[in-house]
Amino acid sequence: MDELALQECLSDLKDLVDSRLKFYIEQSVPKHGQVAELAGDVLLAGGKRLRPLLVVLAYELVGGRDLEEILPLALAFEMIHTATLVHDDINDNAKTRRGLPTLHERFSQEKALIAGDWLFVQGFSLGGRLEGEVVTIIADCCGLIASAEFKQINHVMDLTTSPDDYLTIVKGKTAGPFSGGCEGAAVIAGASAEQREALLRFGTEMGISFQLVDDLLDIRGDERMGKPRGSDVYEGKMTLPLIHALTILHGPKRQRLVEIILGFSDSMFDELIELLTWADSISYTEILIKTHIERARSALDLFEESQAKHALQAITDLVIDRFE
Amino acid sequence: MDELALQECLSDLKDLVDSRLKFYIEQSVPKHGQVAELAGDVLLAGGKRLRPLLVVLAYELVGGRDLEEILPLALAFEMIHTATLVHDDINDNAKTRRGLPTLHERFSQEKALIAGDWLFVQGFSLGGRLEGEVVTIIADCCGLIASAEFKQINHVMDLTTSPDDYLTIVKGKTAGPFSGGCEGAAVIAGASAEQREALLRFGTEMGISFQLVDDLLDIRGDERMGKPRGSDVYEGKMTLPLIHALTILHGPKRQRLVEIILGFSDSMFDELIELLTWADSISYTEILIKTHIERARSALDLFEESQAKHALQAITDLVIDRFE
Repeated sequence: MDELALQECLSDLKDLVDSRLKFYIEQSVPKHGQVAELAGDVLLAGGKRLRPLLVVLAYELVGGRDLEEILPLALAFEMIHTATLVHDDINDNAKTRRGLPTLHERFSQEKALIAGDWLFVQGFSLGGRLEGEVVTIIADCCGLIASAEFKQINHVMDLTTSPDDYLTIVKGKTAGPFSGGCEGAAVIAGASAEQREALLRFGTEMGISFQLVDDLLDIRGDERMGKPRGSDVYEGKMTLPLIHALTILHGPKRQRLVEIILGFSDSMFDELIELLTWADSISYTEILIKTHIERARSALDLFEESQAKHALQAITDLVIDRFE
Repeated sequence: MDELALQECLSDLKDLVDSRLKFYIEQSVPKHGQVAELAGDVLLAGGKRLRPLLVVLAYELVGGRDLEEILPLALAFEMIHTATLVHDDINDNAKTRRGLPTLHERFSQEKALIAGDWLFVQGFSLGGRLEGEVVTIIADCCGLIASAEFKQINHVMDLTTSPDDYLTIVKGKTAGPFSGGCEGAAVIAGASAEQREALLRFGTEMGISFQLVDDLLDIRGDERMGKPRGSDVYEGKMTLPLIHALTILHGPKRQRLVEIILGFSDSMFDELIELLTWADSISYTEILIKTHIERARSALDLFEESQAKHALQAITDLVIDRFE
C-alpha cells in the first residue's frame, strides 16, 4: 500500500472520529446544557485522536469489519482521555491546553471540575454498553490512571525517583489507555489470546514512547504542545531526562541540577539544557524512545500484512516524527 | 410486620451494604494503593446508605429475590454518590464531611480530585456490568447531576431563582440518583412499565423531600449533618426557604434579607432566622416536605403489602424524623 493512500486512510479515520465526537456533543447539549457545551469545547478543540485511531486499527488488525461495533470503545477512550486532561489541568493549574485557555481559566475551577466529571460519565456511558470483559478493561485502566496519578504526586520533586517508579507511573497514566484500548478492541473483534496479548504489548510500548516524547518536548519546547516549555520541570514532575541526569551527574553539576529542579524558573532553562546535554540525557531519552517503538513494531510481527497493520506502523513512525 | 422486626431488617440490610463496601475497598487497596485508601476513608466514614437501601428494597418490592443480582447497582450508586460528595466538597471548599475533615483538607486538592474520580470509576465499573438499559439509566442520571450542578453554580446568589429553577436543580442533583436507583432496580427485577414508573416517581419524590430537609437542617443547624449550620447560605446556594422568603417579604425586610444573602456571616444568623420565620418560610418548607413524602407514599399504593413495601414506608418516615 503506498504512503499517500495510507495517510489518506488515517486522515479519513480521524475525520470520522472527529465528526462522531461532534455529533455526540451536539446531541448532548439540548439535554445537559452548558456542561456539555464546555466539555465539547475541550473535546473538539483538536487533538490527534491517537487513542481512537489505535482502537479502530487494532480491531481491524484482528479481522474486525464493522466500524459501528468498535466506535463506541474508540470514542469512550477519547472522552475519558479528555476528562483526565481537564482534571490534570486543574491540578497543575495549567493556563493553556492545545493552545487555548484551559476551562478553569475561562470559567471557574468549579465548572471545569464538573465538566471533567461529565466527560468521564460519557466515556463510561459509551463503554458501559460493551461486553463485561471490555468494561473490566476500561475500569481497570481508569483505576490505574488514578493510582498512577497519586504516585506521580507523591514523587513531585522527589530526587530519589527511580526509572522503575517512572515506568510504573507512565504505564498507569499514559500507556494504560493505549494498551487498554488495544486490548479492548482485540476482545471485541474476537481475537485469540496470543493476538490480544500482542496488541496489549503494542499499546503499552506505544504509550511509553509517547510519554517519553512528551518529556523531551517539554524540555525542548514545542508549540504543538500548546503549553509553555518547561511546564513539567516547573511543576516538579520527575521526567525521564531529569531522572537520568540525576543518576549520571556528580559533584557540583549534580548539585546545580538539584537546585534547578527544586526551584525552577524560566531563566534557568539554558543552564538546565546544558546539564542535560552534559549528562547525555536527551540522547539517552531519544534512544529509549526508539527502543520502545521498536518493541511496539515487533509486537505487530504476529499479524499478517494488511492495511490496518501498515496504518499502525505508520502511527509508530508519527511518534518518532514528533521529536525528530 | 411489627416495628421492631422492620427496624432490624433495615439495619441488617445496611450492615450488609457496609460490609460489601468495606470488602470492595479492601480488595482494591493492594491493586490501587493510596487512592483506594483515601477514597475508602470517605466511603466507609459512615452515612445512612439511603441510596443502596432504596435500590435493594425497590428490587424486592417488585419480586426480585437474589440479593447478589441487585447489590452491584446498590453499591454503584453509593460509590457515585460519594464521588460527587468529594468533588462538591472541593468546589464548596468544605472543611468537614460526616464530622471528619474533608479529603482536600487532610491531604491536598489534587489528591481529593483524583480520589473522587476513582470513586466514579468504581461506581461505573460495578454498574457497567449490568444490562444496557440500566447502564443508560446510570449514565443519564450522572449526566444530569453534572448539568444540575452547573445550573446551581449559575444561580449562586441569584435572587431571581424561581421555585422551578430550584426543582430542576434538585431533580438532577439529589432526586436523580434516588429515582435512577429505584428505576434501575425495577428494570433488573423485570418490573412492568407501570411498576417501573411508580418506582421512578417514588424515588423522585423521596429525593426532593430529602433535599428540602437538608435545606431546613442547614438553617436550623444539626450536628448529624457533620458540617456547620448556614453552610449553604454562606456559599450563596439558593435553598427553598430563601427562595420562598424572597417572594413573600417586601420593603425593608426583603432588602435586609437580600443584604444577608449577598454578604452572609455567622453573626447574621439570628436575624436570618427571624426573617424566615416572619415569612413563614420554615413552616412552608416543612409542609412541602410532607407533601412530597405523601406523594412518595402514594406511589407505593400500586404494590401489594410486603416486607419491602413496609420498609420503604419506614424510610419515608425516617426522612420526616430527620427534621421533626
